Amino acid sequence: MSVTDELLANAERYAAEHDKGDLPLPPAKGVAVLACMDARLNPYGLLGLSEGDAHVIRNAGGVVTADERRSLAISQRLLGTTEIILIHHTDCGMLTFTDDGFRQQIQEETGVKPDWAAEAFDDLDTDVRQSIARIKADRFIPHTDQVRGFVYDVKTGRLREVLP
Amino acid sequence: MSVTDELLANAERYAAEHDKGDLPLPPAKGVAVLACMDARLNPYGLLGLSEGDAHVIRNAGGVVTADERRSLAISQRLLGTTEIILIHHTDCGMLTFTDDGFRQQIQEETGVKPDWAAEAFDDLDTDVRQSIARIKADRFIPHTDQVRGFVYDVKTGRLREVLP
Repeated sequence: MSVTDELLANAERYAAEHDKGDLPLPPAKGVAVLACMDARLNPYGLLGLSEGDAHVIRNAGGVVTADERRSLAISQRLLGTTEIILIHHTDCGMLTFTDDGFRQQIQEETGVKPDWAAEAFDDLDTDVRQSIARIKADRFIPHTDQVRGFVYDVKTGRLREVLP
Repeated sequence: MSVTDELLANAERYAAEHDKGDLPLPPAKGVAVLACMDARLNPYGLLGLSEGDAHVIRNAGGVVTADERRSLAISQRLLGTTEIILIHHTDCGMLTFTDDGFRQQIQEETGVKPDWAAEAFDDLDTDVRQSIARIKADRFIPHTDQVRGFVYDVKTGRLREVLP
């Protein structure tokens, strides 16, 4: 049995207990969370989110690339969110390699160098500020006055705000 | 008080109850979930995921663009995941507009047309299959034999597999 099959059994139980009624499409709290995909970072537990509350956007590093700007533009323009919460975290995999090294390794294995930046970084706070700057520089995201960035500590479970 | 401040108070409570020990960086279950950012779709509740279990990647629609391929390449190459679970859902916002219309609307408001596809779609199953095809076509994602796609029903809480 694959892990996927094991998780599907959990999904059966979730459906049996499902009692969310008819939740509306727009997020109830008007907020979009953009966080790293890291397995130890659970935005639902951390922020106390329930079904219907918030858009949750995630990728390797919690960085802001074209696709996150697309998602944020859709979130704000079509579904009414106005606040953005960015979350990076300690012990992040993105701190363990460099773009040059990773792309070189892929080139050696596959014969082709990826045409994307891996978006590795070497300082958490600096990259959170960089993510905020990328959002504020995007003219397609209308609401950028409530963008705040944080670092989650995977050992203590604590969230620390990154100040400008 | 902003919604962000309200959620930060929840984060304080989470930290106080935090007892995850020293979870390792690689996901325990070796799986990456790629799902829509929709507020009603909670991958933790649905799949029974706990902190440390799985990478979770999310965006508007749960679609596969360059940034999701970047995240999946990092997930598999650096952090050992080998299975991928794709999740779209009923009543998705991406079914309510067209790329042309959305990009035109932004052009009218800002004077500039976005240089990205909005990735709207008009059929859930077709787009799940499209996402699987994009992953299998990517030469930088090494493990593509365990990629399965699903549609989550936001009314019943049930997960339905999209067969090839």
